[in-house]
Amino acid sequence: MNILPKVVEDLIESLAIFPGIGKKTATRLAFFLIKENDESRRQIANSIDAIGSNLKNCKICHNFSSSEICELCLDSNRNKKTICVVESPFDILAIESTNTFNGKYHVLNGLFSPLDGIGEKELNISSLIKRIKNEEISEVLLAISANLEGDATATLIKNKCSQISNLKITKIARGLPVGGELGYTDEATLCNALNHRIELL
Amino acid sequence: MNILPKVVEDLIESLAIFPGIGKKTATRLAFFLIKENDESRRQIANSIDAIGSNLKNCKICHNFSSSEICELCLDSNRNKKTICVVESPFDILAIESTNTFNGKYHVLNGLFSPLDGIGEKELNISSLIKRIKNEEISEVLLAISANLEGDATATLIKNKCSQISNLKITKIARGLPVGGELGYTDEATLCNALNHRIELL
Repeated sequence: MNILPKVVEDLIESLAIFPGIGKKTATRLAFFLIKENDESRRQIANSIDAIGSNLKNCKICHNFSSSEICELCLDSNRNKKTICVVESPFDILAIESTNTFNGKYHVLNGLFSPLDGIGEKELNISSLIKRIKNEEISEVLLAISANLEGDATATLIKNKCSQISNLKITKIARGLPVGGELGYTDEATLCNALNHRIELL
Repeated sequence: MNILPKVVEDLIESLAIFPGIGKKTATRLAFFLIKENDESRRQIANSIDAIGSNLKNCKICHNFSSSEICELCLDSNRNKKTICVVESPFDILAIESTNTFNGKYHVLNGLFSPLDGIGEKELNISSLIKRIKNEEISEVLLAISANLEGDATATLIKNKCSQISNLKITKIARGLPVGGELGYTDEATLCNALNHRIELL
């Protein structure tokens, strides 16, 4: 016997597909939705539904966009000569929130991982190389995760760019995170922090 | 300038109304939804939408139900003489998961809290009293939260039932939770644990 009506069970099951949301949290969210009024539920449902038809990928940088070209690519106030390469549009949000970078972006849509079926063709790398050449880019900043896939992707891009002249390729720094205590830091991070030490005087 | 397209901003805003889900988690959920296919998004949206039109309250116990009378009330295998009184249908789930109670339920739909505008009339108390009389209930088990509102609600129900003969009113036990360490337990809990000590021999 089901304790809950089928509509509620269906709702819980639907909400439990979210990452980090188990059956228990999904149940709590479902009960919250049940208490809400029709209009507010309709609004959530519509906004989920709207994603499918209204969201495109920018033809230049592959960021999410509601039009052909995204607002970041259209923005004439940004430095056109620097491209920051990221794994996903999610990373652009994180970088923009720092107010530290004012160049353009390029979304790879994943990281190089042949074992998971993500090879060079699955990533937006050829369009990146084209942009570097056509837009006369002077710096490519690789802002990708500090893991095996990230390193492999960086090497791949570096090799592809080796023939392009007047191009600087950089990657974001690795070291102690803010608030990180040295004694509790893992060896690999500490190794990076020592190797890339910054000159103070 | 908006970094994200409006459809994505709308989706994040919609998801952030859930309890315990802030802007950052909502953003993560939204990006997850964007990666999903149309069909799976449609399914979530539909299940949220379906709640409004398909969910009723059981006419007997006020539990959620897809028909006039809920499955728990219709179940002839349950003890008809004991009613467990709970604040919300959510609590029924928790109690059913223990497999410890086999009686009927009654959902109050809140706890007595005049300062928050929840008086006697806002709660399903008169229907509870009617059930106790008509169904010849022998025990009312109050399974409500161990706080001020819960205590006030218990007192209210106890007073309403004072004239009914052959009725036992009980409440769920209070004491140390499983795994609770005595030295770290708050005074009120410890006080309850001492006062309601259980005879072993």
